[in-house]
Amino acid sequence: MSKVGIIMGSKSDLPVMQDAIDILKGFDIEVEVDIVSAHRTPEKLFDYGKNAHIRGFSVIIAGAGGAAHLPGMIASLSPLPVIGVPVKSSNSIDGWDSVLSILQMPGGVPVATVALNGAKNAGILAAQILGSNNATILNKIIAYKEELKAAVIKTANGLN
Amino acid sequence: MSKVGIIMGSKSDLPVMQDAIDILKGFDIEVEVDIVSAHRTPEKLFDYGKNAHIRGFSVIIAGAGGAAHLPGMIASLSPLPVIGVPVKSSNSIDGWDSVLSILQMPGGVPVATVALNGAKNAGILAAQILGSNNATILNKIIAYKEELKAAVIKTANGLN
Amino acid sequence: MSKVGIIMGSKSDLPVMQDAIDILKGFDIEVEVDIVSAHRTPEKLFDYGKNAHIRGFSVIIAGAGGAAHLPGMIASLSPLPVIGVPVKSSNSIDGWDSVLSILQMPGGVPVATVALNGAKNAGILAAQILGSNNATILNKIIAYKEELKAAVIKTANGLN
Amino acid sequence: MSKVGIIMGSKSDLPVMQDAIDILKGFDIEVEVDIVSAHRTPEKLFDYGKNAHIRGFSVIIAGAGGAAHLPGMIASLSPLPVIGVPVKSSNSIDGWDSVLSILQMPGGVPVATVALNGAKNAGILAAQILGSNNATILNKIIAYKEELKAAVIKTANGLN
Amino acid sequence: MSKVGIIMGSKSDLPVMQDAIDILKGFDIEVEVDIVSAHRTPEKLFDYGKNAHIRGFSVIIAGAGGAAHLPGMIASLSPLPVIGVPVKSSNSIDGWDSVLSILQMPGGVPVATVALNGAKNAGILAAQILGSNNATILNKIIAYKEELKAAVIKTANGLN
Amino acid sequence: MSKVGIIMGSKSDLPVMQDAIDILKGFDIEVEVDIVSAHRTPEKLFDYGKNAHIRGFSVIIAGAGGAAHLPGMIASLSPLPVIGVPVKSSNSIDGWDSVLSILQMPGGVPVATVALNGAKNAGILAAQILGSNNATILNKIIAYKEELKAAVIKTANGLN
Amino acid sequence: MSKVGIIMGSKSDLPVMQDAIDILKGFDIEVEVDIVSAHRTPEKLFDYGKNAHIRGFSVIIAGAGGAAHLPGMIASLSPLPVIGVPVKSSNSIDGWDSVLSILQMPGGVPVATVALNGAKNAGILAAQILGSNNATILNKIIAYKEELKAAVIKTANGLN
Amino acid sequence: MSKVGIIMGSKSDLPVMQDAIDILKGFDIEVEVDIVSAHRTPEKLFDYGKNAHIRGFSVIIAGAGGAAHLPGMIASLSPLPVIGVPVKSSNSIDGWDSVLSILQMPGGVPVATVALNGAKNAGILAAQILGSNNATILNKIIAYKEELKAAVIKTANGLN
Repeated sequence: MSKVGIIMGSKSDLPVMQDAIDILKGFDIEVEVDIVSAHRTPEKLFDYGKNAHIRGFSVIIAGAGGAAHLPGMIASLSPLPVIGVPVKSSNSIDGWDSVLSILQMPGGVPVATVALNGAKNAGILAAQILGSNNATILNKIIAYKEELKAAVIKTANGLN
Repeated sequence: MSKVGIIMGSKSDLPVMQDAIDILKGFDIEVEVDIVSAHRTPEKLFDYGKNAHIRGFSVIIAGAGGAAHLPGMIASLSPLPVIGVPVKSSNSIDGWDSVLSILQMPGGVPVATVALNGAKNAGILAAQILGSNNATILNKIIAYKEELKAAVIKTANGLN
Repeated sequence: MSKVGIIMGSKSDLPVMQDAIDILKGFDIEVEVDIVSAHRTPEKLFDYGKNAHIRGFSVIIAGAGGAAHLPGMIASLSPLPVIGVPVKSSNSIDGWDSVLSILQMPGGVPVATVALNGAKNAGILAAQILGSNNATILNKIIAYKEELKAAVIKTANGLN
Repeated sequence: MSKVGIIMGSKSDLPVMQDAIDILKGFDIEVEVDIVSAHRTPEKLFDYGKNAHIRGFSVIIAGAGGAAHLPGMIASLSPLPVIGVPVKSSNSIDGWDSVLSILQMPGGVPVATVALNGAKNAGILAAQILGSNNATILNKIIAYKEELKAAVIKTANGLN
Repeated sequence: MSKVGIIMGSKSDLPVMQDAIDILKGFDIEVEVDIVSAHRTPEKLFDYGKNAHIRGFSVIIAGAGGAAHLPGMIASLSPLPVIGVPVKSSNSIDGWDSVLSILQMPGGVPVATVALNGAKNAGILAAQILGSNNATILNKIIAYKEELKAAVIKTANGLN
Repeated sequence: MSKVGIIMGSKSDLPVMQDAIDILKGFDIEVEVDIVSAHRTPEKLFDYGKNAHIRGFSVIIAGAGGAAHLPGMIASLSPLPVIGVPVKSSNSIDGWDSVLSILQMPGGVPVATVALNGAKNAGILAAQILGSNNATILNKIIAYKEELKAAVIKTANGLN
Repeated sequence: MSKVGIIMGSKSDLPVMQDAIDILKGFDIEVEVDIVSAHRTPEKLFDYGKNAHIRGFSVIIAGAGGAAHLPGMIASLSPLPVIGVPVKSSNSIDGWDSVLSILQMPGGVPVATVALNGAKNAGILAAQILGSNNATILNKIIAYKEELKAAVIKTANGLN
Repeated sequence: MSKVGIIMGSKSDLPVMQDAIDILKGFDIEVEVDIVSAHRTPEKLFDYGKNAHIRGFSVIIAGAGGAAHLPGMIASLSPLPVIGVPVKSSNSIDGWDSVLSILQMPGGVPVATVALNGAKNAGILAAQILGSNNATILNKIIAYKEELKAAVIKTANGLN
């Protein structure tokens, strides 16, 4: 069965990345969470990236802040789709550093980048990737979108 | 069989978006190319987004410039994974407008954003999404990454 | 009689958008407020945009944050003048994302953009649009500008 | 009959601003073009702003580059709706200066800002403002939007 | 005797602009403080700019935030040196709007721009302008620079 | 008699800085031009800054690009008013580096910053500084402003 | 024995710069801390820069905010490697000013720039510079990197 | 004897990086040039970073563009000082991406960043690092700085 690997550069990224964990669990998709630092644990990075597709992951979500190299380096090492979450860390220059160092990957090695601190969307995107080949998950996403819609309509009705 | 929908806001985006077409064809993945303008053909946008998963697409790649609403609106309408390509158009403010209006999607509706003019990577990412559930495609991606590596090694050896 | 439609992507935008409601009510101009999310209620967006001029609106004010597609998509669907209010939402990159995704519309589909969080000015602009053809409203705007002036003069006199 | 005033800070802005002239003439809307420099002809600026509504203008389009004060100063002086066109001039810092000095008007004095060099959209917006009270013009805008759509559809069909 | 005019667009700018008042009073230079809003009191702006050199001012310091047109419009109207202080106001986009709309004046009409919220430096610069022709003031500036130096040396000595 | 010192960090800045020389000569104001590099000739920088007021300069204009330290260091060393011209050099990041490293001086040491490549305005500002105490120069500036106005009026008349 | 000079433009930079002091002391490397203001104590700047290599320093770390000229001016005066720390000071424009005025040095005069507020990394870099020729220090850096790794691994293990 | 490793992510970076090679050869310092792509040759990256200090390098210069991970990953793997050169590549967003993804390294893993395309300064910095422990090289740097100075003085004299 498919599972999603969720990794982050530091435990301080967990409050942001928790949104990805929660949304995937809500879709009954298995996740495995780990801390992998491109800059402090390069061997673990290598091992993780090289073996993720062998270990049964279908998608990897990687979050990091500042000069955020984790998503791109995993994308360098793995043939799986890698979703990057730019995290707005404390000494970040307004988040621009993490956004640009994840988004602007060179030709050949894509990272599917989501919004600054957009871990929830990273989780949904991972579900959509699994759902593109799995009718059960696809239907859950369709249902999820209906719920989003219903919530807005309800709020709108409550305005008047 | 899986296919990838490639759409763009204007024919002027085609020179950039051609890279996505070429790389996917190189992986023997079926693509269907169309022009869908969020701002000039909103009904076509709606129809495309609502029916893409029914019409047999597994992934959609959408490219647009300036205030680029096409990827996000398709993501609003479709349960499929949507890859957004920010295109640096002529009156763009250095590309920041297309990058931010594709990347910064609200919680609930992700767009997998690639680099400015990064259509090649959009194509590879689409292949990776298909490959996450298809060993043949996965192996093609592994082979592709080996080719990238070999080309660098060869160039490096040629330096001396 | 003319009325102004005020819509926003989320109820969380209401504290900002309230300024538009208040200033228009102060000019005795009828407003109708609704929540329309481009990304979560695309059908409502379509219905709203397609029918606004038929339902008796003369001007539409649309506020949204982040990758803000609501103003531009309404402008795509409606022949009416659309005023866009970039809202600085919580995960925005300093507001640049909402400003650029509202302002940088392609040729053919304008959005009259006001300052970041500038809902008050959106209301005044809507009144000016109505006033450009209505002497009563025009005179109210002239009077409003006199009040602004008088308030500054009074404060300036109070300095010494 | 309604007419639109089109002014710009320098004759060097005319190639950009011509788009506004052309589109309005295409809608059979009367335009009057002038050069008014906030910084070099402040008396003319004052006279223009103070009297535009008396001289029969319904809307004013003002284009300027760099520290672009013309649109905002006209908005200060006139009760009419003022549309601002940020022009990317030669020593501009990528257009950011003209965008921000037109867009970020203080509460009380709006400028309806369009995209960088977006004079065409300024013209369409002026037509929409007139059309919000004039069925003939409104219908022309509806027809114009249909033409935009048809052109995209035709181009899209030509792809295959 | 020379005096310096200090004006600002709004009373809310006074906490920032007070630094200019204080430093000039510390140099025994006469100041006259006023509120002049380019956008709300354009007639007062005109009168102020046209007559400042006749009324005995030698230098004008003008502070404003957002789309800050006050310094540039005074510079348009007056032959005197005008010092502009970009004020970081509440809805400013990080201060970039006020900086660029003051700094990027077109050829022919300079504004001597100081740092964001740099009213103290505006005061010192005004004193330097007067001092360039007045040995008493020049000597006060030389003494002031010595005081700055002595304070740093003293703090540095206190480190150890 | 008063004279203006015009210095620049490199001869490659001369094409930009020539505008300051020309405008001042047009006002019959004496100028002395030199190359002083903060980073390559620090001793000359020191000597220049320390002695400029003794050598008879009334104002200094300093132009530099990139990490532009020349204007600020001269301002550190001299009690005279220093006008800084940010020059957009070849490896500049769109000019932002020179703008910010000249503009954002700390409290106590102002630099009167003009627009990117705004050497012409630096020259006019220097003349205005001299003119604030010299009726002949003041009148030349008043005449210059009249010429600017007349040129715009003439161009405007030529439009029709 | 080698020692590292740590200087900063103002005592208010000390809380940031303390990280450099602490990390170097942790490596048993001698440091000497001083306040040297490029703009307020230019003579001390000159003396420091000219004599640092004679006084026994091997590396200099210089931190400053805003228009940060201290690192670049020391680099101008000294043949030693100079590490620059951009400090995010109170009136900084989000730190961009200090980053760019330290980083963008002209050809011939490098400053080794670290991240915004990155004084800890400045200290490590200074140790690495000494370590490139000193096996004891090199081994300490290798050990330090092992500690970083072990801490991440421990935290990662604690997740489950 | 000490040598400097110069690596770059792609052969297209060589025209920029050549400046580092040339300046170091001018100082008679041994260099070894290679292409190491973080994203296409991750194994080579690992091998290079892990063994550089063993293979006799004293300093590493790494240049890369876009989402530039090469300098930071080498710094992750090696205890040596790493100098990063942000290269302005073709699809870069004005160079901001490479600057920020090299500069903004997290605490613990510094990269000594130089200006955009500043390979010449990277070479000089490498020489200074070697020179901090080698009087011969230090004297060459002192001589080099004298040459820079003499060239400016000569050009300045030629102005008049």
